[in-house]
Amino acid sequence: MYVLVNDSIISEDEAALKITDLSIQRGYGIFDFLKTVGGKPVFLEDHLDRFYSSADQMRLPVKLKRNELTDLLLILIDKNNLADSGVRITLTGGYSPDGFNIASESNIIVTQQDFVINRDFEKSIGLMTYDYQRQFASAKTLDYLKAIWLQPVLKEKGADDILYHDNGMLRECPRANFFLVNDKDEILTSKSNILKGVTRKHILKFGSQKFKIDERELTMDDLRHAKEVFISSTTKNILPVTKIDGRVLGDGTPGPLTRALMKEFDTYVYGGK
Amino acid sequence: MYVLVNDSIISEDEAALKITDLSIQRGYGIFDFLKTVGGKPVFLEDHLDRFYSSADQMRLPVKLKRNELTDLLLILIDKNNLADSGVRITLTGGYSPDGFNIASESNIIVTQQDFVINRDFEKSIGLMTYDYQRQFASAKTLDYLKAIWLQPVLKEKGADDILYHDNGMLRECPRANFFLVNDKDEILTSKSNILKGVTRKHILKFGSQKFKIDERELTMDDLRHAKEVFISSTTKNILPVTKIDGRVLGDGTPGPLTRALMKEFDTYVYGGK
Repeated sequence: MYVLVNDSIISEDEAALKITDLSIQRGYGIFDFLKTVGGKPVFLEDHLDRFYSSADQMRLPVKLKRNELTDLLLILIDKNNLADSGVRITLTGGYSPDGFNIASESNIIVTQQDFVINRDFEKSIGLMTYDYQRQFASAKTLDYLKAIWLQPVLKEKGADDILYHDNGMLRECPRANFFLVNDKDEILTSKSNILKGVTRKHILKFGSQKFKIDERELTMDDLRHAKEVFISSTTKNILPVTKIDGRVLGDGTPGPLTRALMKEFDTYVYGGK
Repeated sequence: MYVLVNDSIISEDEAALKITDLSIQRGYGIFDFLKTVGGKPVFLEDHLDRFYSSADQMRLPVKLKRNELTDLLLILIDKNNLADSGVRITLTGGYSPDGFNIASESNIIVTQQDFVINRDFEKSIGLMTYDYQRQFASAKTLDYLKAIWLQPVLKEKGADDILYHDNGMLRECPRANFFLVNDKDEILTSKSNILKGVTRKHILKFGSQKFKIDERELTMDDLRHAKEVFISSTTKNILPVTKIDGRVLGDGTPGPLTRALMKEFDTYVYGGK
């Protein structure tokens, strides 16, 4: 596989950063992750919006202008020639002379991997709730300390993913947004102190044509009374949740509104193919 | 300068990590930092204790046993042949196959830099308080997002370092511990939810022979009434603080107890040289 490191497209095996990079020294950086379907990037402009926004929020300079980055992304995607894939754009604090302050030039890395999205409408997962608020919630930083640290706990509890809540206020999963269906058949997603996903944005946008759908402050109490739950992300699209902290939701299968939304979203992204 | 990367001592210019390392992908890793004085490591066993404790807390395997790491550290220090220096031991999540879970082998990097400690007893600094609680407080993780992000704010406010408090409970500086002297001439340092520094430990230990010194839960109110303030770290030893959020403490020079403690500590570390 080819990767981009700053302005060079090189083989992945050769791609490395010197140890003075601020990601290695201080975990400092941001990234974004998009998918390609049939060789074409999906929601590219949204991901670039968020990439530059994360960089800006974390005070990281980006030497590539948006059109330059776009061109290089398209060249890389073309060169790797994968139909369905994930593309990750990482931006680090660069080679910091003092190992602490952001360097005048950040490092940019683009990697791509073969990746086929699950489109099985029967699949569902279990969540484990956990009290935690992501730092710099609206930026997609490299900080996954808590999520990675919790992986063995997740296995122990027999859950598949984590749902963060901040002292009872529902937030998000480490790599996905959270939705629930309430007793009024409203489809609701957490509003504040989260990373606003690109998939989430599109669900809110296209979903509003056929469904009662909105963002709102949600609590653990809303979760207890939810009729249906699902999560959304670039790699998961819409993924039903049928278990929370060991408790089975409804009959343990994806609910009717989740199914209807999944079907619509699948058509929206894949054009009915 | 020579550095250690896993089991090889190589030139710093050649030292790199592949981009699949979990520090670059997810900011996941820990480190420790010690100094050498006259070519000899200072408080080496304390730093190794904390290094292995941080690794353990963050579930990171260390392939080097303690005696193996010690031997390699001493070989590196000998080879670089610096009198006064800083030595950093970094441990990352390794080359993660899925870019998310900790690899079965972590990566270890040891770097060394020329570094002479300030022993000017007249120097003092100003602190800016900031509401923040470090994640995984008792492990020395790579997570310096907040501290690095705050650097321009620090400059704007004309302060030299940050004092974190968690909703009014005093904690620590990003890279140093915090002490104050109260109106009973007690020298107190924050007790909970902090990284317990090696210098802090030794100040508490040797200081208790001549001073009223202890760890305690401290509040912003204690800070407002403090007669003297100082911070401690491997690179700073004891560093007086004479300004907090723009307010000058006392006559703006290091206080008598701070000075007395500094003198004792200097003798303790440098043996009166």
